Amino acid sequence: MKKQMRSVCPVACTLDLFGDKWTLLIIRDLYLGRRYFKDFLASPERIATNILSDRLNRLLESDIVCALPDDHTVGRNTYALTEKGQSLIPLLEAIKDWGLANIEGTAVRVKAA
Amino acid sequence: MKKQMRSVCPVACTLDLFGDKWTLLIIRDLYLGRRYFKDFLASPERIATNILSDRLNRLLESDIVCALPDDHTVGRNTYALTEKGQSLIPLLEAIKDWGLANIEGTAVRVKAA
Repeated sequence: MKKQMRSVCPVACTLDLFGDKWTLLIIRDLYLGRRYFKDFLASPERIATNILSDRLNRLLESDIVCALPDDHTVGRNTYALTEKGQSLIPLLEAIKDWGLANIEGTAVRVKAA
Repeated sequence: MKKQMRSVCPVACTLDLFGDKWTLLIIRDLYLGRRYFKDFLASPERIATNILSDRLNRLLESDIVCALPDDHTVGRNTYALTEKGQSLIPLLEAIKDWGLANIEGTAVRVKAA
């Protein structure tokens, strides 16, 4: 699943993974403790099912998210950040802090699923 | 130019500004000392003229970039980061560091125009 790189620039290559309006929101949701496909759909930004499927598959292929069979329901998965995925948390926090400092009307909610 | 917010989440709102494959590359280029429209076009990722115009306009409207008349050529602008734009540099550095640590084949080039 190695794609053509636009350049060797680490910013460009990172944007090839996360440069869209949705992927980092899934990372955020996982960080906030959400684990189910339906949890991500329920987030206030209202991601569409097909976009969520696409982004989750890309995150699985990139070893940023892992899927585990749900203990309670056969055939259902739960999702979690891998170690590589967890290494994105400082970046996510930096984005959050920038937004809070620079975009009027933003606010953080208490960390909860 | 206030748009509908998807949510009050500062991550979502920041992605509404920068959640694409190109905007942060323009910020990177400005940080690297590039100042002219043609400089951005010449970057290795080969941004298209219409995308560059669109993103530059959005950055101007968001007070992240400012345009100044070129001293040498009448009718030509140079571009620079505003103070708000410069506050993105730590975020850009964090993205660069994540890419270098996690994406094979990435490398930084010497800071130069």
